[in-house]
Amino acid sequence: MSINQMSYAYGASKSSIREIAAYGSARKAEIGAENVFDFSLGNPSVPAPDAVRDSIGHALTLPAVSLHGYTPAAGLPQARKAVADSLNRRFGTGYAPADLYLTCGAAGSLSIVFNAIVERDAACEVAVVAPYFPEYKVFIENAGAKCVEVLADPATFQIDVAAMAAAINEHTVAVLIDSPNNPVGSVYSQQNLEDLAAVLREKSATYGHTIYLVSDEPYRELAYGVEVPWVPSIYDATIVCYSYSKSLSLPGERIGWILVPNTNPDHDSLVFAVAGSGRKLGFVCAPALFQRVLIDCVDVPTNLDAYVRNREALLSGLSELGYEYIEPQGAFYLWMKALEPDENAFFERCKKLELLPVPSESFGCHGWVRLGYCVSYETIVNSMPAWKKLKESYAQ
Amino acid sequence: MSINQMSYAYGASKSSIREIAAYGSARKAEIGAENVFDFSLGNPSVPAPDAVRDSIGHALTLPAVSLHGYTPAAGLPQARKAVADSLNRRFGTGYAPADLYLTCGAAGSLSIVFNAIVERDAACEVAVVAPYFPEYKVFIENAGAKCVEVLADPATFQIDVAAMAAAINEHTVAVLIDSPNNPVGSVYSQQNLEDLAAVLREKSATYGHTIYLVSDEPYRELAYGVEVPWVPSIYDATIVCYSYSKSLSLPGERIGWILVPNTNPDHDSLVFAVAGSGRKLGFVCAPALFQRVLIDCVDVPTNLDAYVRNREALLSGLSELGYEYIEPQGAFYLWMKALEPDENAFFERCKKLELLPVPSESFGCHGWVRLGYCVSYETIVNSMPAWKKLKESYAQ
Repeated sequence: MSINQMSYAYGASKSSIREIAAYGSARKAEIGAENVFDFSLGNPSVPAPDAVRDSIGHALTLPAVSLHGYTPAAGLPQARKAVADSLNRRFGTGYAPADLYLTCGAAGSLSIVFNAIVERDAACEVAVVAPYFPEYKVFIENAGAKCVEVLADPATFQIDVAAMAAAINEHTVAVLIDSPNNPVGSVYSQQNLEDLAAVLREKSATYGHTIYLVSDEPYRELAYGVEVPWVPSIYDATIVCYSYSKSLSLPGERIGWILVPNTNPDHDSLVFAVAGSGRKLGFVCAPALFQRVLIDCVDVPTNLDAYVRNREALLSGLSELGYEYIEPQGAFYLWMKALEPDENAFFERCKKLELLPVPSESFGCHGWVRLGYCVSYETIVNSMPAWKKLKESYAQ
Repeated sequence: MSINQMSYAYGASKSSIREIAAYGSARKAEIGAENVFDFSLGNPSVPAPDAVRDSIGHALTLPAVSLHGYTPAAGLPQARKAVADSLNRRFGTGYAPADLYLTCGAAGSLSIVFNAIVERDAACEVAVVAPYFPEYKVFIENAGAKCVEVLADPATFQIDVAAMAAAINEHTVAVLIDSPNNPVGSVYSQQNLEDLAAVLREKSATYGHTIYLVSDEPYRELAYGVEVPWVPSIYDATIVCYSYSKSLSLPGERIGWILVPNTNPDHDSLVFAVAGSGRKLGFVCAPALFQRVLIDCVDVPTNLDAYVRNREALLSGLSELGYEYIEPQGAFYLWMKALEPDENAFFERCKKLELLPVPSESFGCHGWVRLGYCVSYETIVNSMPAWKKLKESYAQ
């Protein structure tokens, strides 16, 4: 039998988030959807804006051969120009369409980037800020690098820059961050990112090679009253990975991009490496119809109303009950302290009350759970008696 | 600088097919599109059937959250069922939806399959029948295997089974075939495939591990009066890679599938390995909207009229002029003998007359050129005086 063991293992073991969601679905079928409070997934509950449907409808009037035909591997020039123009308007930058490579979503972006910068069998390392989205480790390891977890500051969940500095060594090729952060919902401050940038510049000089800052930004547009700093304006050797899965609620359509900012010292080589990485992984091009949707919808504002309402209901409800959490500044996750040190034991007690958060072990740390509030408002409101009962059960 | 050298090389060096196409576009801008006869690309010139537009229009009436949401990694159950049912009707098989994994097109299928069956650093080999689509080598090498080229029978361009038997050794994990074949247009006969299967069974027994037959079938529906045998009915350990790029003219939309037939001795492990491979490469799921299109369009017949007309015009025109070629039974390519042994020298003389075929070196053999006849009918008819002039120039 010829089977790649890493592939087998990743296929045979589902992610624990998906396992909880599958349990939730089964449980809903058993006792009724209204009696299960499933906070496990990060699926947008807000529909794509009407502009997306209008754009698709308009695209369908184009000749089918050009509409559905191959695009250049990096994407339609008009779509890349639309994205570059939008970034330049928003961040005062001067990016060209050629700095952008359209992808099949953020997972595609990250996989392509790590396969572009990691040299196999060269003992490369990529540092991530824990807690972190568990698929990061999959993409980093598959590219042939070691995933080095660096715990965030335990009080603020900002990047612990001193810990990051201590973790970086001659093997480090990149640091991966996401802000707004999944699972915590924190947004890294300008100061925090500047401190990180200073360390990266120093370490790059010390070790004689550029240490990239890979900024994964699917939640950029989901921020609640705080500004999300533009990372390439803080550190030159940044690579941005973006997706429209959350901002336009298009997770199934697989559309996003990689930006290699023109500030990057290795810009031209990196652009080639990104293109070659996409090619060797088999991506060919991002889905053509949704490339056209970007041309029309790149500046359509994200509809945050439902998330704002959900966030307020969840925070006020849980805070009244005495739960502790990190106040989320972005994304649609609440990072809540478990009521006992073992988050898995806490999860088992949640489950008995039909409450389904995700234990923090999945994200590389202990003592917390993640609640996705991209659910219906009713789920949040109706879950409160169960959260109350859970809290009381710990008081006894 | 941390750059993956393989990615850089693949990004910095365009495929020679793309280079010729780029030259053709530039030349058209220079002297007028009607004066350049570009046969380099494999882009369908037939529009997607109206049923595709109707299906998208219908899908747009669905709630956007479910329409554009994440699907299961292997695809929507209804879409996989539609494909399985269609295959079972056509080939008398008994495949289940779980045997199918929807992908971002044939390149995605192949990349996922090789990353599912090739163990890195284990000296694996995959044998291909030359001439072959050059990206095969990219996907095979990126998965960590050696690409072993086995020349087809030089008279018939069927698989040279004796040569294949001689090339297979303890390191061989798979043989990759495509029928109808790109670049030749040949369709492997039932007997040819049965002979190959006998060798693969014998070699699997000799070396104590299953040697898979990976059957890449993007051109299955493009056959001209011959039957294309169903490979898994001939060899149990077959894995089929399919794409709707040519059959429904949707190359930009990236939609296809992998079938792990239930006849496969390692079926369950392979299904896991395919899922894990898709996951680690960052595919997440095939584009959701086009998964829905499959439900409606899986049995929509491929419109062959234009290709039939083009094929006849090209074959009769060139044969009257005395050119020699392999009569194509499928796909939309003509494999024509160069008028001198060095196909690159021949290509240079073509180019002077604004004729742009692809020299056979790109496909791993010498003395031929490939002409894609997925062009306009006018391109074929209007190119004949140039082909005549070229032939006459060799007679002098």
